[in-house]
Amino acid sequence: MSEPTILHRRRFLAGTAMGAIGVASAARAQAPGAGTSTAEAPRPEAHGAGPEAKPAAKPGAKGLPASLAWKDPDAFIVHSSQTVETKRGLIGSGVVTPIDRLFIRNNVNPPSDAIVADRDAWRVEIAGVASPRTLSVAELKRIGLASVATVLQCSGNGRKYMQDALQPGQKISGTPWTVGAAGCVIWTGVPLKAVVDALGGPAPGVRFVTGTGGEELPAGLKPKDVMVERSVPLSTLDTVLLAWEVNGEPLPLAHGGPLRMIVPGYSGVNNIKYVKTVALTEAETDAKIQAASYRMHGVGEKAGPAQPSIWEQPVRSWITAPLENGAAGRTVVTGVAFGGMNAVARVEVSIDGGRTWADAPLIGPDLGRYAWRLFALALDLPAGTHVLASRATDAAGTVQPEETKPNGGGYSYNGWRGPAVTLTIA
Amino acid sequence: MSEPTILHRRRFLAGTAMGAIGVASAARAQAPGAGTSTAEAPRPEAHGAGPEAKPAAKPGAKGLPASLAWKDPDAFIVHSSQTVETKRGLIGSGVVTPIDRLFIRNNVNPPSDAIVADRDAWRVEIAGVASPRTLSVAELKRIGLASVATVLQCSGNGRKYMQDALQPGQKISGTPWTVGAAGCVIWTGVPLKAVVDALGGPAPGVRFVTGTGGEELPAGLKPKDVMVERSVPLSTLDTVLLAWEVNGEPLPLAHGGPLRMIVPGYSGVNNIKYVKTVALTEAETDAKIQAASYRMHGVGEKAGPAQPSIWEQPVRSWITAPLENGAAGRTVVTGVAFGGMNAVARVEVSIDGGRTWADAPLIGPDLGRYAWRLFALALDLPAGTHVLASRATDAAGTVQPEETKPNGGGYSYNGWRGPAVTLTIA
Repeated sequence: MSEPTILHRRRFLAGTAMGAIGVASAARAQAPGAGTSTAEAPRPEAHGAGPEAKPAAKPGAKGLPASLAWKDPDAFIVHSSQTVETKRGLIGSGVVTPIDRLFIRNNVNPPSDAIVADRDAWRVEIAGVASPRTLSVAELKRIGLASVATVLQCSGNGRKYMQDALQPGQKISGTPWTVGAAGCVIWTGVPLKAVVDALGGPAPGVRFVTGTGGEELPAGLKPKDVMVERSVPLSTLDTVLLAWEVNGEPLPLAHGGPLRMIVPGYSGVNNIKYVKTVALTEAETDAKIQAASYRMHGVGEKAGPAQPSIWEQPVRSWITAPLENGAAGRTVVTGVAFGGMNAVARVEVSIDGGRTWADAPLIGPDLGRYAWRLFALALDLPAGTHVLASRATDAAGTVQPEETKPNGGGYSYNGWRGPAVTLTIA
Repeated sequence: MSEPTILHRRRFLAGTAMGAIGVASAARAQAPGAGTSTAEAPRPEAHGAGPEAKPAAKPGAKGLPASLAWKDPDAFIVHSSQTVETKRGLIGSGVVTPIDRLFIRNNVNPPSDAIVADRDAWRVEIAGVASPRTLSVAELKRIGLASVATVLQCSGNGRKYMQDALQPGQKISGTPWTVGAAGCVIWTGVPLKAVVDALGGPAPGVRFVTGTGGEELPAGLKPKDVMVERSVPLSTLDTVLLAWEVNGEPLPLAHGGPLRMIVPGYSGVNNIKYVKTVALTEAETDAKIQAASYRMHGVGEKAGPAQPSIWEQPVRSWITAPLENGAAGRTVVTGVAFGGMNAVARVEVSIDGGRTWADAPLIGPDLGRYAWRLFALALDLPAGTHVLASRATDAAGTVQPEETKPNGGGYSYNGWRGPAVTLTIA
């Protein structure tokens, strides 16, 4: 399976005490106590052999790595230097996630910051077209300009809720993200379609868009085992953006600068960072991160190319406030909701654990089908213990389910039960 | 007239050489030269007796004041410590203006940053309602939540183009902004209407929403002469937001935190910073900044309450790239366009100074009627000298004019001719 540098270090430690730390359950089993408590208790880390295993972080270590010192230090749960989760209550209510609060997740360590010293000089090879060429970002900027808002979300966002729901003896490895491996940002760049058209159009027989990241591969490992190369269906050619800008500023290295292949609606791993090759291909890549990772396989089964790849994101929502015990009276329940590939059509909120639901107005700008919307419902919370939940319906009529059937990689969790908030009103 | 602290210092200097510096014409008379030139040449400052006179800035001084050290130092033209313009090419192409690049314009020096030490404790008095009350931000947060994207623009944005078009002997005082006193940001807060409803609704006979800023008034001056208090029509009650957040983060003091009265579609001065009172009133305030300033009066005339107040922003657009000489071939002409009170419906681009026009696609997310849109047109620029311009049409069918008739305050400029870009393609 994929074996990036970080796995190397983890396996070294597998025999140590770090390999067996359990995960304390947070939202599901939280007993409200007197005073303030939050639904996001810090959790010791789980380690295992899954594809998203991370370096042995010190439990309780909160500091951002030096490369992320520009981010808001108070906004994160630092699982590892490459796995940094936005705190649930700090995603902001401006629909667009501030870039200094956006989560970080890397399969392979990023390249050095030398690659963003001269951003316009970065080169990307375009293949699988009538006239293949390598183009610089400066040249891409002369072809066209487009902008799209998308939900950028790690495939494993919500894995913790899946892990918590397992039967005894079952195991799902990987970072126990709850909701914070997600954000909504605005990308600007050139449509891939305009680039392909400028190079004579797709070659005959191609069926996928395959992007390769510009990471330096660790020495001593087979390239196919570690490279970040993902294939997505050719239908995405209508929406894929080669982006050099996010939220109106040059794309930071940490988020894939100088150039990232954005696939609107598709899970994070498919949005190739520091993309160096974009090829239209007849088949999916046989790189391990595609063939034997990020697939929909059963718990305890191996991942393989016969299983669906983790591509389109499903309808999902979660509450971002309130997260803490509080006083009785009027309060505003708010959160985010998205349809993945479709616009979100409706959000409902429950304060009784899903027995009854009320429609929650969507507020703020609508940034398009691939973005998320804010919802906000002002209501009177009476004294007592409540379980708050939100449930989204997308424009195709798909309703966010109560739970998501666990899968081997802990991917694509989208239940409303997992992120439900238990709190006590005095 | 209004006499904030900064005017005090300016009058002291009126008799010095600083009082007679002319303004070098930039975009209108630019002769393209060999190599790179920009349409935004640095300009010595104009001083006069107008309402937007600023402290005597040193010509060529580029540094941001200490209070703005958190902003992007390369993104601004610093007219003065209270008058800081975003560079034309650095507004970003993400439709939402990054807050570290958003312009600054104050009529009165801001309060101390003590007021943002405990943001939820800031109190605003709500008057002209059935049950007047003073509410904290914490209390406002329990009433409701809404979010809106707006173009925040100084009333004098574009004044330079108006100054350049004057007849000999005519004079318009005030900061010679070109396009950079504008941005598009997303505010989050509570709808004023929800607050008014929670307090029993408007009192009988009220016709205006009057907001008062929390600035400390300079000693020795009549309060009415310096306070920042503006009235807008009661119809705005449907859209006014009391905002504590911008672009998903707590509203910085520099932009009016902890609480700002946002009037979507209305020019900057009406968006009261650090708002301490919001009153529904029967008449416009008699504060000088309302009664004798920010009015539509003729060149050389005095401002007075009989003239229209500078309220609703008109349809407008300008190009943000290219701004420099370049090589022949394909290029992307891009910029921003907005309808003020209405959505923008159409943008056209000319490369021959307005003789011929082509429709430019609108790109990126549509953040609603009060926001701006990006436009981008890929075209082949042949060798030669070109005059690039953009012309917007709003959803009500109003077309951006070629020029705006000069007015005494240099307000509401919206011509397409002024910001036209002259450049040479080799």
